[in-house]
Amino acid sequence: MEHTEISTIGEFGLIKRLTQNFPIKNISTEKGVGDDAAVLNYKDKKTLITTDLLLEGVHFDLTYVPLRHLGYKAAIVNFSDIYAMNGQPKQIIVSLGVSKRFSVENLEEIYAGIRLACNKYGVDLVGGDTSASLNGLTISITCIGEGEDEQIVYRNGARENDLICVSGDLGSAYMGLQLLEREKIVFKSSPDVQPDFEGKDYILQRQLKPEARRDIIDNLHKNNVLPTAMIDVSDGLSSELFHICTQSNVGCRIFEDKIPISEQAAVMAEEMNFNIVTAALNGGEDYELLFTASINDYEKLLKIDNIGIIGHITTAEKGLALVGRQGEEISLKAQGWNSLH
Amino acid sequence: MEHTEISTIGEFGLIKRLTQNFPIKNISTEKGVGDDAAVLNYKDKKTLITTDLLLEGVHFDLTYVPLRHLGYKAAIVNFSDIYAMNGQPKQIIVSLGVSKRFSVENLEEIYAGIRLACNKYGVDLVGGDTSASLNGLTISITCIGEGEDEQIVYRNGARENDLICVSGDLGSAYMGLQLLEREKIVFKSSPDVQPDFEGKDYILQRQLKPEARRDIIDNLHKNNVLPTAMIDVSDGLSSELFHICTQSNVGCRIFEDKIPISEQAAVMAEEMNFNIVTAALNGGEDYELLFTASINDYEKLLKIDNIGIIGHITTAEKGLALVGRQGEEISLKAQGWNSLH
Repeated sequence: MEHTEISTIGEFGLIKRLTQNFPIKNISTEKGVGDDAAVLNYKDKKTLITTDLLLEGVHFDLTYVPLRHLGYKAAIVNFSDIYAMNGQPKQIIVSLGVSKRFSVENLEEIYAGIRLACNKYGVDLVGGDTSASLNGLTISITCIGEGEDEQIVYRNGARENDLICVSGDLGSAYMGLQLLEREKIVFKSSPDVQPDFEGKDYILQRQLKPEARRDIIDNLHKNNVLPTAMIDVSDGLSSELFHICTQSNVGCRIFEDKIPISEQAAVMAEEMNFNIVTAALNGGEDYELLFTASINDYEKLLKIDNIGIIGHITTAEKGLALVGRQGEEISLKAQGWNSLH
Repeated sequence: MEHTEISTIGEFGLIKRLTQNFPIKNISTEKGVGDDAAVLNYKDKKTLITTDLLLEGVHFDLTYVPLRHLGYKAAIVNFSDIYAMNGQPKQIIVSLGVSKRFSVENLEEIYAGIRLACNKYGVDLVGGDTSASLNGLTISITCIGEGEDEQIVYRNGARENDLICVSGDLGSAYMGLQLLEREKIVFKSSPDVQPDFEGKDYILQRQLKPEARRDIIDNLHKNNVLPTAMIDVSDGLSSELFHICTQSNVGCRIFEDKIPISEQAAVMAEEMNFNIVTAALNGGEDYELLFTASINDYEKLLKIDNIGIIGHITTAEKGLALVGRQGEEISLKAQGWNSLH
């Protein structure tokens, strides 16, 4: 790849090169990149806004994450937060802090990933800030989305007897990360050994190129299911259940044998002598949707693909517990914060 | 000051401690901190959105910037961008990346500064992300504001013969920075020598605790002046004029003897053998408002305090120039980007 020093094209040249292939797709975007602020017009819709800060060495490791994938994932994790409110992402703002080791072409790779995500999910790039950094790469993305009045779903609406549902499967992204970390260590000691990724494409994709569950939001809407509470699974099932239950002032029971696990994740866990249920509970980065719904919606939920019912909401007094395969109850603990010290 | 390790209070404890004293002030804030996204309701107003990324060692130096001032300034620079659209800032989202050397009390100091700025300017804290970093402190702030339809002012509306106006004075923040840098070098070689800041309080305040010009926006509105183009002075007068002229497809003449300079900045420049006009043109961080207005508004502009008329807009062919004290013309160059390599 070419290596053009950022200093050679200047601030305006760089911004132009990075943002030129982002045509505006949404009518709510009145003015995008190029002024002190972007101008959005949400009219009778509510505005949803979320942000994520990604730091090299903490949230990503460039020894095995391609820059294009990093850009894609950085956008997706923000879209996922908007879907978790039952909204639709519409705009993003991207700030980069870059050290001298990054070239213009490197930044274009990151933006290529962001563009791919924006095109797939119908989101406009409307601004940002690009700056030098002393060390490493910093990516800060803010996403703005729209929600219909009365349709926005918070974390605090779960009620006793509600069903607990989750989309897709859990733990695969974490097992993908374990695999990448293992192969990194192998590579360090034996650079000539090619990594062994045979039959592990799914868990790698879950870690390196996750998707946000727009399809689930669309299908819930089509089937007239409005979740009572919802959150996306970024820190792991346990932590997300804790958020919903604390904010809704309820407890829950989830069933070990109902937790959706992919075959590749199960095989990988076996190979690494790792408990796959622990990976699902505490691994994070699955970006699936965890939601609660009224038991009256049970029949409708059965009609929607890629949703599993994994438990139910109880009174707060009963606490949060996992019910094991022999019927034993194991208390769930709040996890998360895995990236802060 | 106490030093509580962040790890001892956990993610939720930290977020609670940092965000607990931010009561909601705006009706447009429907849901602030505590869900996947904040929910805002701008109804018939336009939504303005801007962001700034601040990195330790590039944008600030903690050897002389107190954390509280840093938090204040980080908020203010974002408010300033919203005022520069002729809007009102309403919400901010704050993301911090912090290395292990920072304690809970350190972060509380940053938030105390942010809170002060939010209280003074009527802005709500509605979300954010706090994460570990490997090196130094990263602050990413996104600000959301509201603008009235037909009242939003862009950079591209300047027309031939428009007056060029600027609020306050220019170059003081830059001379404040030069003073701090000088005293830092003195301190390194002679730690016992107390810094000499006598009679330099104004330029220090301009650098360490700048304000955003809400008063100017309010006074323009009260006097029925709608600028034709506007930008805030973050990179220096020269760079901001370049933005307005390029986007409006016009040129300009500004007059050296009209550029507003504070006495302290002039004295400091003399003392350091520095050209104060250069500081005003290229120094940046003044956070004053630079705007153009129709010549028909001349009488109204004279009634508004703290605004100076420094020149006028010409056709694009005439280019951008500073007219010196002897009438000589000096071409202006695009500067800025001082923080990227």
